[in-house]
Amino acid sequence: MAQLEAGDLAQAVIDRMADAPNPRFKQVMAALVQHAHAFVREVELTPQEWMTAIEFLTATGKMCDEKRQEFILLSDTLGISMLVVAVEQIKGARAVQAQVAAGAQPPTEATVQGPFYWEGSPELGLGSDIGEGAPGEPAYYSGRVTDTAGTPIANCCLDVWSGDGDGIYDMQMGEKAGMRLRARFHSDALGKYRFWSIKPTFYPVPDDGPVGDMLRAMGRHPNRPGHIHMMVYAPGYQRLTTHLFVSDSPYLDSDAVFGVRNSLIVDYAWHPAGTAPDGRTMEKAYYTAAYDFKLMPAA
Amino acid sequence: MAQLEAGDLAQAVIDRMADAPNPRFKQVMAALVQHAHAFVREVELTPQEWMTAIEFLTATGKMCDEKRQEFILLSDTLGISMLVVAVEQIKGARAVQAQVAAGAQPPTEATVQGPFYWEGSPELGLGSDIGEGAPGEPAYYSGRVTDTAGTPIANCCLDVWSGDGDGIYDMQMGEKAGMRLRARFHSDALGKYRFWSIKPTFYPVPDDGPVGDMLRAMGRHPNRPGHIHMMVYAPGYQRLTTHLFVSDSPYLDSDAVFGVRNSLIVDYAWHPAGTAPDGRTMEKAYYTAAYDFKLMPAA
Repeated sequence: MAQLEAGDLAQAVIDRMADAPNPRFKQVMAALVQHAHAFVREVELTPQEWMTAIEFLTATGKMCDEKRQEFILLSDTLGISMLVVAVEQIKGARAVQAQVAAGAQPPTEATVQGPFYWEGSPELGLGSDIGEGAPGEPAYYSGRVTDTAGTPIANCCLDVWSGDGDGIYDMQMGEKAGMRLRARFHSDALGKYRFWSIKPTFYPVPDDGPVGDMLRAMGRHPNRPGHIHMMVYAPGYQRLTTHLFVSDSPYLDSDAVFGVRNSLIVDYAWHPAGTAPDGRTMEKAYYTAAYDFKLMPAA
Repeated sequence: MAQLEAGDLAQAVIDRMADAPNPRFKQVMAALVQHAHAFVREVELTPQEWMTAIEFLTATGKMCDEKRQEFILLSDTLGISMLVVAVEQIKGARAVQAQVAAGAQPPTEATVQGPFYWEGSPELGLGSDIGEGAPGEPAYYSGRVTDTAGTPIANCCLDVWSGDGDGIYDMQMGEKAGMRLRARFHSDALGKYRFWSIKPTFYPVPDDGPVGDMLRAMGRHPNRPGHIHMMVYAPGYQRLTTHLFVSDSPYLDSDAVFGVRNSLIVDYAWHPAGTAPDGRTMEKAYYTAAYDFKLMPAA
């Protein structure tokens, strides 16, 4: 019996885009088609499996509303969001390769922004406490922002946000709860910053939808290790969106969204009640976390 | 400046599935992750493009309801549905390689089922006319069903359906319109079949949703060439789901869902009013379309 041929269907689809007006769209879609077809051929996806995929994607779409973005969660839990972040930062580094000295240090690594960024948080003075009243143990954050050659960046914005000591973000507490555990600080003339917040704890991504079902089928848990988000930006530099991860948090080795970079893991040093580094009198134990940020010049 | 590394994120995602209970699920997801990550790296997908993809998938999910399956349409228009069909048929052929004689002919090629199959259509006698009253020019269909060695298959079911001469299927005419242009016939003792219907015409897939936007961005039209669907099955043989395509239809070279196989293109011979091959007196011109089906033995 003569062999049946699947034919080069992927190429047929690509050829059909000959008249696509946007060359970048054409390039992206051609690569998508090549990889999607290669995947189907490689695993010999069955019609039943294909239908399972159709039903999964449909349910994922139905789960999306103003509060919930299940497709982003899917992208996150498959490591794709983190990959897009990493690829973008590598492109940024490539763009400034010529203008950066050979002995310069690598920039601070980027990681995913996540769903809880809220633009327009309060601008507060250095040393302010954004953790007061929130569940969680107090933590004093300090460090310096420089460029990759070590030159301080003054008046650099640090837009910070985190969940509380129970792993809950303000945005998860309903419309009227307002902002909490987030603020914008600006580095001083030496590039230094400092503020008080809490030591964040681990928490699960939403796992009551199709992506949660997928995680369970994969034998995975839905948790992210404790972290505080930082968006660090100043004119003339590439904006950095990253986290600092708590070094003694569970799930550092198995972040549900693959956001952990070793260079972003920070020791939270425990201190008994007493005088904190900024002279503040602490009536209970607290932590200190120090981290220096290095930004790449703008392209 | 030291080079940033994206790290082997795809491998990290795959490693995270170590405890997945279902080995096939693990295999499929590992390949999916490899290809999805390779795609992102290859095109260096930007965060803006990623967000466009998220929004597209979300809108595609929102478009789905009981009447409309936009994800299947997406799969169809990217050639993936047809690829799944082709891969399935190739697997079927591989499974029976040993039991089929060397000189046997290739089986009839499969193509996509499409969204308009309706189970339980009327069982009619050979020679019945399912086109009467529907828009379109009459066409007489006949041929034989055999196995790949040429042995006739008696009492083989041909479950046929098509749109009318305006390209409209019964299912598109609202809940209460009922079945039209579809029936089940059974081959005679010699494997022969015959029935009357109409000569189908081209029609567009639904293009008022996200997939329509994608087709326009690709510079593509949404049309399928004229075709009649046939599902051909008998105990002991692999079920065949296919179309016959009208050889003088527009869009044979650019079927929106990539379903055309050259072996499925059939000449519709025109005849003036007069006596048809089955002795019927035709008061207006009609067509005849002849096609022989070859089924593979069951695995």
